[in-house]
Amino acid sequence: MEKTGNLEYLRHSLAHLLAAAVLELHPGTKNTIGPAIENGFYYDFDFPPEGGSSSADLPTIEKKMRKILKTWKEFSGKGVTEKEAREFFKDNQYKQELIDEIISKKEKITLYTSGNFTDLCRGGHVENTAEINPDAFKLTRIAGAYWRGDEKNKMLTRIYGLAFKTKEELDEHIKMQEEAEKRDHRKLGKELKIFTFDDDVGPGLPLWLPNGAIIIEELEKLAKETELQAGYVRVRTPHIAKESMYLKSGHLPFYQDTMFPPMELEGGRYYLRAMNCPHHHKIYASEQRSYRDLPLRIAEYGTVYRHEKSGELFGLMRVRFLQMNDAHIYLTPDQFEDEFNRVNDMYLHYFEIFGIKKYLMRFSTHDPARLGEKFVNEPELWEKTEDMVRKVLGKSKIPYVEVANEAAFYGPKIDVQVWSAIGREFSLATNQVDFAQPRRFELVYIDKDNKEKTPLCIHRAPLGTHERFIGFLIEHYAGAFPLWLAPVQIRVLPIGRAHQEYARKIYTTLLDQNIRAELDDSDETLNKKIRQFKIKKIPYALVIGDKEIESKKVTVESRDKESLGQMSLENLLKKVTKEITEKK
Amino acid sequence: MEKTGNLEYLRHSLAHLLAAAVLELHPGTKNTIGPAIENGFYYDFDFPPEGGSSSADLPTIEKKMRKILKTWKEFSGKGVTEKEAREFFKDNQYKQELIDEIISKKEKITLYTSGNFTDLCRGGHVENTAEINPDAFKLTRIAGAYWRGDEKNKMLTRIYGLAFKTKEELDEHIKMQEEAEKRDHRKLGKELKIFTFDDDVGPGLPLWLPNGAIIIEELEKLAKETELQAGYVRVRTPHIAKESMYLKSGHLPFYQDTMFPPMELEGGRYYLRAMNCPHHHKIYASEQRSYRDLPLRIAEYGTVYRHEKSGELFGLMRVRFLQMNDAHIYLTPDQFEDEFNRVNDMYLHYFEIFGIKKYLMRFSTHDPARLGEKFVNEPELWEKTEDMVRKVLGKSKIPYVEVANEAAFYGPKIDVQVWSAIGREFSLATNQVDFAQPRRFELVYIDKDNKEKTPLCIHRAPLGTHERFIGFLIEHYAGAFPLWLAPVQIRVLPIGRAHQEYARKIYTTLLDQNIRAELDDSDETLNKKIRQFKIKKIPYALVIGDKEIESKKVTVESRDKESLGQMSLENLLKKVTKEITEKK
Repeated sequence: MEKTGNLEYLRHSLAHLLAAAVLELHPGTKNTIGPAIENGFYYDFDFPPEGGSSSADLPTIEKKMRKILKTWKEFSGKGVTEKEAREFFKDNQYKQELIDEIISKKEKITLYTSGNFTDLCRGGHVENTAEINPDAFKLTRIAGAYWRGDEKNKMLTRIYGLAFKTKEELDEHIKMQEEAEKRDHRKLGKELKIFTFDDDVGPGLPLWLPNGAIIIEELEKLAKETELQAGYVRVRTPHIAKESMYLKSGHLPFYQDTMFPPMELEGGRYYLRAMNCPHHHKIYASEQRSYRDLPLRIAEYGTVYRHEKSGELFGLMRVRFLQMNDAHIYLTPDQFEDEFNRVNDMYLHYFEIFGIKKYLMRFSTHDPARLGEKFVNEPELWEKTEDMVRKVLGKSKIPYVEVANEAAFYGPKIDVQVWSAIGREFSLATNQVDFAQPRRFELVYIDKDNKEKTPLCIHRAPLGTHERFIGFLIEHYAGAFPLWLAPVQIRVLPIGRAHQEYARKIYTTLLDQNIRAELDDSDETLNKKIRQFKIKKIPYALVIGDKEIESKKVTVESRDKESLGQMSLENLLKKVTKEITEKK
Repeated sequence: MEKTGNLEYLRHSLAHLLAAAVLELHPGTKNTIGPAIENGFYYDFDFPPEGGSSSADLPTIEKKMRKILKTWKEFSGKGVTEKEAREFFKDNQYKQELIDEIISKKEKITLYTSGNFTDLCRGGHVENTAEINPDAFKLTRIAGAYWRGDEKNKMLTRIYGLAFKTKEELDEHIKMQEEAEKRDHRKLGKELKIFTFDDDVGPGLPLWLPNGAIIIEELEKLAKETELQAGYVRVRTPHIAKESMYLKSGHLPFYQDTMFPPMELEGGRYYLRAMNCPHHHKIYASEQRSYRDLPLRIAEYGTVYRHEKSGELFGLMRVRFLQMNDAHIYLTPDQFEDEFNRVNDMYLHYFEIFGIKKYLMRFSTHDPARLGEKFVNEPELWEKTEDMVRKVLGKSKIPYVEVANEAAFYGPKIDVQVWSAIGREFSLATNQVDFAQPRRFELVYIDKDNKEKTPLCIHRAPLGTHERFIGFLIEHYAGAFPLWLAPVQIRVLPIGRAHQEYARKIYTTLLDQNIRAELDDSDETLNKKIRQFKIKKIPYALVIGDKEIESKKVTVESRDKESLGQMSLENLLKKVTKEITEKK
């Protein structure tokens, strides 16, 4: 906490410095508030009518800040009376409002001064202005902001800055930001023709282009193979169901706002599903089950529809059409520990394949005060199930934190957070333990003692939704997908027209071997063709010229490395088949 | 026509004979009407209050019919006046109503008599009652039927019969009917756990159980491989779209009744899609296309929803949730003949794989009188496109018939009809040539002359919907799916407990080789286990006993043939892998 405190004080001090610089540069400006924020600070200003600041001024302001900083030594604070404060800020209605607020809360009024600049301020500054590294802050952008965030108020001008302790930290942060912008899944998704949106289809409803469909199908294939080995069975169910289904599950009315509105049909109401579980419960219920049949693991490429508000839609990260490798595992309480560990092992298996090195499970529990309202009113089952999960998580090697009051309404929830290659955090998947829905659907199994009992249900989708996961992967790989996931795996580059026939043969052979290949038979120069395949982030290109035709070899260029030189087609196929199989 | 006429006369004559028999057996019964129908005849009776007939009476009635038949020689007809007719049927209000109708239509009234039985009848009888073969008819069932089909009228008793010229034809028909009942996809679908329905999900919305999902996935895999080889690209698109999409496509308002009602969301209306084409048009439109990019073949496992009326829903044959291997091919007019032939070749390829020996294409054209109403008002384009299709069909070896006035609204349609192994006809798939939608969606390509032109679009789904196709396959194969499609391919049968460990090893090896295997480790006798795997229609079973453990072989039992004797596991794997690959 000490470190965070220091950083917060540092950033807040820089907000004062910013205000001091702006007031010197633009006399008549009214300063308002300037808090520390994540990675930096901002300050809101009311510029005089004769003119304010634009992005172009930021270097000037920064320069002025550094100049002023040299004259500052410390922040000295002093308590003042309301009268003194009102007198000091007599021309600044914003400060008057802030004083009103302090008075109404019966708090003390303090002013902090550095050099010639005094601000109304609760405090929290660096002890010595020498702690402010003049090379470790940077003004980044200027934007409009309503006074106190209320659109009924006047629009002020907000200036943002970044601030760290060292120049290295600042540079690192700027680099990561730039990298994240370059890797933005919306930008790369368009450039690499992975997905698109269309006004007539609707916001939040991605259309997956052929390149995107290939990635989805490879992910599905991986999940299918993994789940087959793990003893899952697969089903296919409709995307709609009658209202009675969701009244039974309890999603109506609790979850109604997130669902699409109903369709009235022959007197019944049908809902587009927002979750796959009720359909799977119906599959469970379609025949009598014995303890010998459990765990029953029902998987499906579930597609669900969620009504996210248009303002909240964001690329692939927040959409209304979601595909996921979903599954529901029905089991006896005795089987819980073993099965839950298996599910976690599957997560770890996927993390390894995708090179996800940092991850965390957020274990969300119920709040006893909100039983019967936010959480099903089953205090004992909550305690028991949460204890089971806590015990298994504790024994496992997976890092986790426990968070109260964020469980699903039917049981404790584990959210899986992962960090991309450039260190950005993504909420990926959830794992839920459900003791309520099986009972609501009257699911039973005949136990060894010949009695009917209610199974537990684990809801799990380790790859999350295809939409969010592919969004994550685009950033994680910066669009340079590993060979097994790459929409186009190899491009064949004949140097001239004389080499096209041979190149076409190579291309056809690759297709026959189920390699996703392309032929670049344009009239461009070889250099341009090589630049092109790297821009398209295709893992390999095979150059075909006189030399290659003569030696019956191909020259292999790599997206990620230098040229791999000549090799026979046979050896190339061996190499790429191995890479594809090993998912490297 | 002569033959049909004769059969119709024969069947109608048998209706008279039925009425004669019933009236003798049940005095006081009022006879009404008795037409010839497909494969037979029926007659509706109003039995007196003291009692009518039940199914148990059918043999008695049949016996009486044969007895009466011996006394009959011919049907003699004579015209009568209204008064004579009303007098003759004075106690029969049904006949009075029929006479009202004949009078109102100003038709002649005729009575036909055979033996002692006289009926009000328009005629059409065998010339000589010797033509009625007493062994070639059979009464089949008894059912309620409202007088004149109107539920406001009295419920009468309808007796149905089958009638052919020869006993052989009758027997053949009965056998085919029995076979069709045994193969009924609803019955087998339940027994073999392929699909189920649930009230909370809704009528016409099948839930595909694990066995059904395997069949769907194998069909998808086949289509995916076939389409990959044929140069198709795959996409994934949402199942919903905004109203504007279907106004643009023209499906609204023309097709509205078949679509689910809209969902109102943030001021917009969204429809569950009833067809995939508009989404694919949007994918086409997502980037600039050149003639070099055509044909562009966009494929998807499209899922659509259609609002079939509940009374019309029927097993998998008429459902509301339809999955299909759909594709839309965008092409220049020059490419039409070649591409259309390729599509037809794909049909023939599938027919061969599934052993479909009899098929027919119904080529549906427009009706010039209904342009601008049922068909888009483009007389020249209709002529041109229909000529193109006619020409290509004519040149191909595919049998086809041409039917007017049944085209899609946007172009000519080819419906594909197939016949199952037991000779039942199914309408399977459609092929449509669309010259209207690409224009409505403003789809263009840059042609060689650098001008923007509108492509043609072929809509095709050679396997039809998964629902109907699997329904067809269940009947076609009588549930005994070929190895590659069989949900469980091999069952391992240890004879006793001592053999279970070895059997489990074999079972695990099969799973590792991606064979869908099961282990029957119950305590049943071997004979019962063998009966069981055949009932479940599993293609192979491997018997494991002392002998097999000692010789390190397995004894292979076949669902379709006698025992195949002992073989090494290695040879068995070779054999089944070959069968799976060859789809035999």
